[in-house]
Amino acid sequence: MENSCLDQPPHQVVIVGGGFGGLYAAKALAKAPVNVTLIDKRNFHLFQPLLYQVATGNLSPADISSPLRSVLSKNKNTQVLLGSVNNIDPQGQKVILGDEAIPYDTLIVATGAKHSYFGKDEWEEFAPGLKTVEDAIEMRRRIFTAFEAAEKETDPVKRRAWLTFVIVGGGPTGVELAGAIAELAYQTLKEDFRKIDTSEARILLLEGMDRILPPFSPDLSQTAEKSLKELGVIVQTKTLVTNIENDIVTIKQGDGVREIASKTILWAAGVKASPMGKVLAESTNVELDRAGRVIVESDLSIKGYSNIFVIGDLANFSHQDGKPLPGVAPVAKQEGEYVATLIEQKLKGNILPAFNYISRGSLAIIGRNLAVVDLGLIKLRGFFAWLFWLLVHIYFLIEFKNKLIVIIQWAWNYATHNRGARLITGEELPTPTKLDDSHTYYDSPNSRQPVKV
Amino acid sequence: MENSCLDQPPHQVVIVGGGFGGLYAAKALAKAPVNVTLIDKRNFHLFQPLLYQVATGNLSPADISSPLRSVLSKNKNTQVLLGSVNNIDPQGQKVILGDEAIPYDTLIVATGAKHSYFGKDEWEEFAPGLKTVEDAIEMRRRIFTAFEAAEKETDPVKRRAWLTFVIVGGGPTGVELAGAIAELAYQTLKEDFRKIDTSEARILLLEGMDRILPPFSPDLSQTAEKSLKELGVIVQTKTLVTNIENDIVTIKQGDGVREIASKTILWAAGVKASPMGKVLAESTNVELDRAGRVIVESDLSIKGYSNIFVIGDLANFSHQDGKPLPGVAPVAKQEGEYVATLIEQKLKGNILPAFNYISRGSLAIIGRNLAVVDLGLIKLRGFFAWLFWLLVHIYFLIEFKNKLIVIIQWAWNYATHNRGARLITGEELPTPTKLDDSHTYYDSPNSRQPVKV
Repeated sequence: MENSCLDQPPHQVVIVGGGFGGLYAAKALAKAPVNVTLIDKRNFHLFQPLLYQVATGNLSPADISSPLRSVLSKNKNTQVLLGSVNNIDPQGQKVILGDEAIPYDTLIVATGAKHSYFGKDEWEEFAPGLKTVEDAIEMRRRIFTAFEAAEKETDPVKRRAWLTFVIVGGGPTGVELAGAIAELAYQTLKEDFRKIDTSEARILLLEGMDRILPPFSPDLSQTAEKSLKELGVIVQTKTLVTNIENDIVTIKQGDGVREIASKTILWAAGVKASPMGKVLAESTNVELDRAGRVIVESDLSIKGYSNIFVIGDLANFSHQDGKPLPGVAPVAKQEGEYVATLIEQKLKGNILPAFNYISRGSLAIIGRNLAVVDLGLIKLRGFFAWLFWLLVHIYFLIEFKNKLIVIIQWAWNYATHNRGARLITGEELPTPTKLDDSHTYYDSPNSRQPVKV
Repeated sequence: MENSCLDQPPHQVVIVGGGFGGLYAAKALAKAPVNVTLIDKRNFHLFQPLLYQVATGNLSPADISSPLRSVLSKNKNTQVLLGSVNNIDPQGQKVILGDEAIPYDTLIVATGAKHSYFGKDEWEEFAPGLKTVEDAIEMRRRIFTAFEAAEKETDPVKRRAWLTFVIVGGGPTGVELAGAIAELAYQTLKEDFRKIDTSEARILLLEGMDRILPPFSPDLSQTAEKSLKELGVIVQTKTLVTNIENDIVTIKQGDGVREIASKTILWAAGVKASPMGKVLAESTNVELDRAGRVIVESDLSIKGYSNIFVIGDLANFSHQDGKPLPGVAPVAKQEGEYVATLIEQKLKGNILPAFNYISRGSLAIIGRNLAVVDLGLIKLRGFFAWLFWLLVHIYFLIEFKNKLIVIIQWAWNYATHNRGARLITGEELPTPTKLDDSHTYYDSPNSRQPVKV
């Protein structure tokens, strides 16, 4: 073990969380004269930007996951620990893991975010979100089970509810899910069923604001909306979801309140910080924002503790233009690398200027040959945006083997329109639809106020 | 819909089960003047011979699964139905599926086998078997969690139990699992841990008979045993498992009774017929053998019902040399194709000679560059057997994309010794070992009768 201060034990860095922030921090510390312990609940790093492709049967979980131990096996100053942190003792400089206490000199907290139902946690059962491998497998189960159940259903109103897919939230994840389900229904599965015509499926994308993809420029939002509509997605902006219960989404559009009968409701609307934010607030009195994120200083440390850093989706860094940085992979990655450099320089007695995020733009894929890319000055759409999106995602996948496998799967799917990973696994098949006939159904003759499309 | 008898509705063939037997029967009926309905509980065909590679983190479930609808989408006379058959009405010629009755003119039952604990079903909790995707993911979770738990365990005796892997059953699946776990422990994971030395792991393969791989010739069994030992596997033949409970396997070797402390016990010892055998026996009075398999006539139909066929692992076909045919993929495939031909010929007024299985040999892989192949006259071992095993498995994988992906994964793993699909998913991490100190531990100083190795 290398050590620059020969008389002292090496500086201990503990990183909690192996997402983009934590993993890039650990990688950047590979040659620093420190010992690193990376703690994660899971034994793998998950490439979340491609999780929607697992949910829609395009890729397998392992294609976008990298075992943390194998990614870091060459970093001899680093150990990986599988476990869940329950508490932090900032005075004693310890992280509490079950009945174990792990000492640290510097702590980096990078536990990310989970989806948020804006206080309506009871919606989760009916409208799962997409943050973990298990979430993706559950979404995949629901999407493919819906087509199977429609094939068996003889009541046309209930069959319609099985073939109605509602995606709540018009950010990149919602747009990507809607585009992928449209491709499934209108292309991939077209030949596979005998009793239903999958092209009768309705895919609704609901967004509260006046345009989808709010982080993009308005003209790119418009392009994306037009492309989605050409794919067959029904895009509804200025649409607030006021209730979700068994198979029914209630929406508010202006003064009108409507109900949509759907057996497959997917949540892509909001995130909140992981519970570690609260743990930190209780132990260090650090301030949290409304989404539960930790307000960090300009060097990503927290107030009063220059040796505790919070990075990635858990951090609220507002020193750049007053607004918090978005919860995306490039922010987490740059923050992780910044903190690693800061630690290394600090050990040498140097200081670093404040963290400065360099945005390289926003990307969202809509479907085959269709994406939007906003690089600030340069804006791409259509085929070139799509190619750019593919290359960027391949480039940032952690392991070479995953890059190779994903390229082949994509090339195959592109050539054949097929998707091989559409396994229905996990729970049993649902029992036949339990929709109550007193409910209104989307766009059915009985709807009280059918949504116009 | 083509139909040879213009005045009648087409002949209805119902196939229950989409494994090798059912799928190959459906494929062989593609051009026959019949309507085919294939019913399966799952929406995919699973290539079971490679399931152990999912269990050991080498492949993803989707790599060895093919959506039944997509495999059969070009067969316009075939429909796929997702569902579980509860009963059969042989007089009314109907299959009962929930509250639906599906009429048939000819019925093919191919629901396979599941693992059997020889009446000790309580062992399943401690020693899972390997038949489904979920089984494989559970095995994978246990195997990789064991290394993680060992890394955290400070008590050397308990750590030893975490690093002891017991595989019960020395048939092909047991041999393949033992070889793969040995490669994991002694090669793949070698650099990944900091506190444990994974090469201290013990992998025990227990077999009741006097040699492993009983279906092979004795000299090939010997080669396999030698190769496994060189890989580091502890092979124990003439060893009966008399009890399995929480973390303890009790074995009987001659007159000696010994206990082995192990946190990871994997079952590869026995199979029994799926419950459809019993359903058939109750509705048709057909005879079952001791393993619950249906005794079939020489044309694979059942006594008294010339329009009901049973094929694959569910069938006991003993007309060839008095012994039932083994429960392997080639038998199921040939039986499925035979019944398809028989149905087609019968509709033309022709009859077919009795079914005759043409064995093309037995294969088992042990590890890198190591396999045994018994083709009767030709026996291969070592590198050429290994190459032959790879080619045969690639050849029989159902879809071209799966062939491609599996080739790449294998080439990658071969070149790098790495395994990417070692995700621990599903249930939470187990709580720290609950081993009671009063138990004896394998090969520990406190063992009453440690197994000599």
